[in-house]
Amino acid sequence: MSVLEIAKELLRLCQSGQNFVAMETLYSDDIVSVEADGSAPYVGKAVVIKKSADWVAAHEIHSGVAAGPYVNGNQFMVRFTFDITIKAKGLRLTMDEMGLYTVADGKIIREEFFYAQA
Amino acid sequence: MSVLEIAKELLRLCQSGQNFVAMETLYSDDIVSVEADGSAPYVGKAVVIKKSADWVAAHEIHSGVAAGPYVNGNQFMVRFTFDITIKAKGLRLTMDEMGLYTVADGKIIREEFFYAQA
Repeated sequence: MSVLEIAKELLRLCQSGQNFVAMETLYSDDIVSVEADGSAPYVGKAVVIKKSADWVAAHEIHSGVAAGPYVNGNQFMVRFTFDITIKAKGLRLTMDEMGLYTVADGKIIREEFFYAQA
Repeated sequence: MSVLEIAKELLRLCQSGQNFVAMETLYSDDIVSVEADGSAPYVGKAVVIKKSADWVAAHEIHSGVAAGPYVNGNQFMVRFTFDITIKAKGLRLTMDEMGLYTVADGKIIREEFFYAQA
């Protein structure tokens, strides 16, 4: 698949709540995931999927929107807007983040998350 | 200035129509600008500013919005939405693009533009 095809497939799956299918099918086994909090990168598909599963378990997701994709070369972006409650805090908020994805050999090899700043 | 301070300053200047002030003051002399059309990167502040000036000359800009910033490490993104007319074609359209900026030593050293795909 081309970079645009992969981008559109990721978007389609995320728009239909199939985020984990997207990770299983589109991510390289050696995917690297970089969060914005300065934590060490997460390496490997199983590790990255567990990170997402942990995030889902810690939040109540009321609704979510995925928009884009925005493409340049072997990279693309998707914008995610989530209406969530952080379970541990009982705090409801809107998350506005951009995912930046890098593709090589038909798979996503890197994802980096950027958060909107007040 | 920190990455977040530079991001907010770029956003503030772009929101107030001072895009060229932003380039003059925040860009490294060795800035590299990467468009999404596969063209060779534009290198150097004067070259990048000329590219922008050429773009402005070729378009009538009815309105523009800059949003964000989205931050991760030494990079940030700004979303630009422009209501423009391409003068040569008489074609009016909305441009939806993301700028991805990389900072080093207090200056923006790289900008990459990603365009929303239908």
